[in-house]
Amino acid sequence: MDSILPLSVRGPLPKPVTKSPPPRADSAEDELVSSGVDGASPRATSAAYQALPVSGALITHNYTPALPVLDADELDKEELEARINKVIEDYKEKLQLRTDHHMGYPYNLDFDYGPLEGLQKYCINNLGDPFIESNYGVHSREFEIGVLQWFARLWEIEPHEFWGYITNCGTEGNLHGILVGREMLPDGILYASRETHYSVFKAARMYRMDAVKVGTLESGEIDYDELRSQLAANAARPAIINVNIGTTVKGAVDDLDRVLDILKETGYTEDRFFIHCDGALFGMMIPFVKRAPMVTFKKPIGSISVSGHKFVGSPVPCGVVMTRLRYIKGVSSDVEYLNSRDATIMGSRNGHAPIYMWYTFTRKGYEGLRKDVEKCLRNAHLLKSMLEKAGVKVMLNELSSTVVFERPREEAFVRKWQLACEGDIAHVVVMPNITIRKLETFVQELVESRARVAVSEALRLAEAARERHGDDEEE
Amino acid sequence: MDSILPLSVRGPLPKPVTKSPPPRADSAEDELVSSGVDGASPRATSAAYQALPVSGALITHNYTPALPVLDADELDKEELEARINKVIEDYKEKLQLRTDHHMGYPYNLDFDYGPLEGLQKYCINNLGDPFIESNYGVHSREFEIGVLQWFARLWEIEPHEFWGYITNCGTEGNLHGILVGREMLPDGILYASRETHYSVFKAARMYRMDAVKVGTLESGEIDYDELRSQLAANAARPAIINVNIGTTVKGAVDDLDRVLDILKETGYTEDRFFIHCDGALFGMMIPFVKRAPMVTFKKPIGSISVSGHKFVGSPVPCGVVMTRLRYIKGVSSDVEYLNSRDATIMGSRNGHAPIYMWYTFTRKGYEGLRKDVEKCLRNAHLLKSMLEKAGVKVMLNELSSTVVFERPREEAFVRKWQLACEGDIAHVVVMPNITIRKLETFVQELVESRARVAVSEALRLAEAARERHGDDEEE
Repeated sequence: MDSILPLSVRGPLPKPVTKSPPPRADSAEDELVSSGVDGASPRATSAAYQALPVSGALITHNYTPALPVLDADELDKEELEARINKVIEDYKEKLQLRTDHHMGYPYNLDFDYGPLEGLQKYCINNLGDPFIESNYGVHSREFEIGVLQWFARLWEIEPHEFWGYITNCGTEGNLHGILVGREMLPDGILYASRETHYSVFKAARMYRMDAVKVGTLESGEIDYDELRSQLAANAARPAIINVNIGTTVKGAVDDLDRVLDILKETGYTEDRFFIHCDGALFGMMIPFVKRAPMVTFKKPIGSISVSGHKFVGSPVPCGVVMTRLRYIKGVSSDVEYLNSRDATIMGSRNGHAPIYMWYTFTRKGYEGLRKDVEKCLRNAHLLKSMLEKAGVKVMLNELSSTVVFERPREEAFVRKWQLACEGDIAHVVVMPNITIRKLETFVQELVESRARVAVSEALRLAEAARERHGDDEEE
Repeated sequence: MDSILPLSVRGPLPKPVTKSPPPRADSAEDELVSSGVDGASPRATSAAYQALPVSGALITHNYTPALPVLDADELDKEELEARINKVIEDYKEKLQLRTDHHMGYPYNLDFDYGPLEGLQKYCINNLGDPFIESNYGVHSREFEIGVLQWFARLWEIEPHEFWGYITNCGTEGNLHGILVGREMLPDGILYASRETHYSVFKAARMYRMDAVKVGTLESGEIDYDELRSQLAANAARPAIINVNIGTTVKGAVDDLDRVLDILKETGYTEDRFFIHCDGALFGMMIPFVKRAPMVTFKKPIGSISVSGHKFVGSPVPCGVVMTRLRYIKGVSSDVEYLNSRDATIMGSRNGHAPIYMWYTFTRKGYEGLRKDVEKCLRNAHLLKSMLEKAGVKVMLNELSSTVVFERPREEAFVRKWQLACEGDIAHVVVMPNITIRKLETFVQELVESRARVAVSEALRLAEAARERHGDDEEE
């Protein structure tokens, strides 16, 4: 039996400010999907959501309607089949509609995995370590290792020096990278800019690490001066730094070389820092951009993570995290039951994802991906110019296909085009599936939406004047 | 900018015993898959794996061969297509073969999601909280909520009192449950039996929690007396207890009611403990077993997790975690970028998984699942009896379909049937896809394998005698 480790434990986290819970949502079933089961299935009321946020504005809208599990025990087989088919067919229509109008999130929705369709018959699970086969035979590790080797070449690390795996999403990559950093430097402080993806500060909280949130420049890059002074002030403790290779909202790329210079200036030797590069979207694109700073393991970085469902495109969220093999010793242990090793965050791992990535890389090659990147950057510049011409305030970082502009004020427009918004800005992430034709429609609808808002506001002034002074036609 | 929290940080974890690294693996390409690309693609050498374990035996075998990404830039289009198709077709054959011979892991490989096939065209992502729609429109939250409501009914919690989500696997459910427990009781000690799934102790390490590993009874259940004395000895601090609803290896069910009694006896009031029920496999089965103790939110438990790819069956690993809505306040925060809330471990979440579960539950109904459970328990008893008759030592817990027996000594047999082994035992987890016909083949081959081993050992005695004394025929 293990004894209790003699360590001091952090006290309770700050408690959330208590507000009264939002009212329970009404059961506003989604129109397309619900039509298939209308008036027939046991209709559960939609789930209430009464949790309170720890901080920030309380999101009280967007309650999800439920599509209850139908009651198989009460329907005859034929009726049940018909119901199910209707639900699925209606849902497919909705998916197609929404896929056609998506602009906001960095997901490449243009993929065709037709030849892989039959694989859905199998429960493919790469449980445990990618490099050591488990006793469970229905896996796709050979594809996974192939994909990892492809990334190793991209990020310039020798085959016998890296370790990595295919994750469920960008968050898992960040959770893994930062965990490796913490195990290497248990007393380290985590530094990341305030425009960093929320998963990084979530990791700090999960792992009970001290974290410093550094300010940002107008571009969205980390404020280098502030980083320097923070590092200097905390020089007694090691540094774990999250470097953004494309921030979530503005697509800003933190300058890795400058961060390395700052570490040197402030006296951090290589054994006293660990850099995790969060390249969720742009980590896949930057190697193909000529004038971009290189993200490579030839520099003293600890880990890189990217998403697979973003620039690459995939039906399921996925990603890759890569680190140096020598670091992984600190976080892994053998699991006899798996006949493999446990060095990943998750246990069972989606075995379909590596095949999607293998298939895309094999099909497109480095050259095909380079062309995709070019197309995205070109269309992002086009969108920027179109918006400028139309009188919309707009920003585009040099190394990015994320076009940032004034947040549209019609909520229906934001929902239709599925725009991600923060404060008074919105963005369009130009992915390979965003064609010039789509940009045309989008800009036209945006301008129309803005015109509607402008007219309605102008008329509201007239209405107010009429209320104050009476209708002057009646005079 | 955030300041550094004034908290003491745990020192470095115990260092692993350093051993010399295993030799680099040879590139033993898998025979079926590699035949498609033989002698043609740029063959990378298989990745070396040189990580060292933290503890336990060093796993130095089973290195995964790589299937490198083909070089699209160097092949003409037609040739490339032909190569890809060959790889995929060969791989499908291998998957089918391995699926047919799988006995060891608790995965129900008998599923048919035919009508859902077209969904692979869409990037379905339930990013953020299930109950609050994100701006990203291509999601399946309505199915997810439907499935959660189905589980809420199963585990007896009111629709407005639960919170939960569909996870990537059992590990994510355990990581979430234990994190909620830690946030509720920041100074709590984690208690779990030594036959608990490895993800539970991984969580303790990730979260920097003190953990007590409690011994087990012969059956695999937690040693209740030892739990009592540990709880009594640490009564000054709250308790976070992992209760196994079916252990990984022996399928043992910790007695929840007895654990609750022990907590009462040792003076823990309900505000000073948090119970997470790890029901990876059996959490889905136990509600359908008449004489089993009820796992329900009517008892003072904090969370339950189950896997979806185990008893239910699914092409991708998935699971469900459920907790009380009031607990989730402590671990969630609103994320404006998502227009949703961040209360899950992962950020992007597989939107196909909820549809698989919805489809199965709708199709089978509670009644269909009850029949599946009956079949599994019946066939597990049959396998136990067959093995006994054949002279194999065997154990089967009353509430389990996990048949534990002497570890077969032929490695090839273990690999063929993909048996999970630990120490000198192996197990077969009888799932709905394990038919009587399959049991017949398995038992027959097991007996033949044992006979081969027995004959070879007997003959080795003769061989040794011959070496010592010479061949007596020559005398």
